[in-house]
Amino acid sequence: VRSRDDATFDVAKPENWLGIWPVFREVVSTGDTYVYPPEIDEVSARAVWMGDAATRRVTYVARVNGCIVGSAYLRPNAPGLADHIANAGWIVSVSCRGRGIGRRFAEFVMDKARLMGYRAMQFNAVVSTNTGAVALWESLGFRIVGTVPEAFRHRTLGLTAIHIIHRKL
Amino acid sequence: VRSRDDATFDVAKPENWLGIWPVFREVVSTGDTYVYPPEIDEVSARAVWMGDAATRRVTYVARVNGCIVGSAYLRPNAPGLADHIANAGWIVSVSCRGRGIGRRFAEFVMDKARLMGYRAMQFNAVVSTNTGAVALWESLGFRIVGTVPEAFRHRTLGLTAIHIIHRKL
Repeated sequence: VRSRDDATFDVAKPENWLGIWPVFREVVSTGDTYVYPPEIDEVSARAVWMGDAATRRVTYVARVNGCIVGSAYLRPNAPGLADHIANAGWIVSVSCRGRGIGRRFAEFVMDKARLMGYRAMQFNAVVSTNTGAVALWESLGFRIVGTVPEAFRHRTLGLTAIHIIHRKL
Repeated sequence: VRSRDDATFDVAKPENWLGIWPVFREVVSTGDTYVYPPEIDEVSARAVWMGDAATRRVTYVARVNGCIVGSAYLRPNAPGLADHIANAGWIVSVSCRGRGIGRRFAEFVMDKARLMGYRAMQFNAVVSTNTGAVALWESLGFRIVGTVPEAFRHRTLGLTAIHIIHRKL
């Protein structure tokens, strides 16, 4: 079901990076939710977010009325004997927050992960002070399985804890 | 202090891979302690273990009487705003177990990590059934900060939990 204003989700093509990069920069530059260096340059950001064929990583885009407003990646959380657990990450433009795009995007990627045979999903670095994200994940059936003290250098709050969050798929 | 039989520890040179690979294969092939694919080929193993200049990864070797009997790596556990926590891993030949080499090697790498400015050390995939390793880490001041259920496909025990283990440096 899709209304005119709804976001659509697709696998990203390499040329979509031009549309993803402004969102990535916007999200990362605040230094309060993602570990990526806030001043990361475009070439490094592209390598980190888009990956390559060798990494078993898939990148997705979210569009509203054809404009890229977010992106996600999906990959094995670990190699070999632990590669049945997926890792994923999302970025959504601040201009599109509060419309439920992040939640639907998350459900979209979780479905993709199930189809690929992943049996669970794990996030390794959910900043504990990012209470909106923690609440979103808990509402989607995830739970905190671990907490690492002083693991994130929050731009305004200093050293804050990071949660490891997990759910079966 | 170093007796004739003691192990020595040094930064690995690229050509040391020839001596590291047999130890890596021996340790990984059992499929009960490391996530690396048990049948991993040498080229993939080298890429995984030795890293490259771009990865901020340092590899070490342990020698006994000049022979390589183990190796370790040290790297940031995450990029950017979380790169003050180190991640590390060790392999020691079965033929040299029980001599305390693993413990001294761990202390050596922890010292190196401190000198590099890391403020803590974290392991993301300590197999819960590897009780010897868990006991070693706890005796060295680490503690379990999280546990992921069914995260490791143990070759003989099936799905087992993985611990996330951490200590400040």
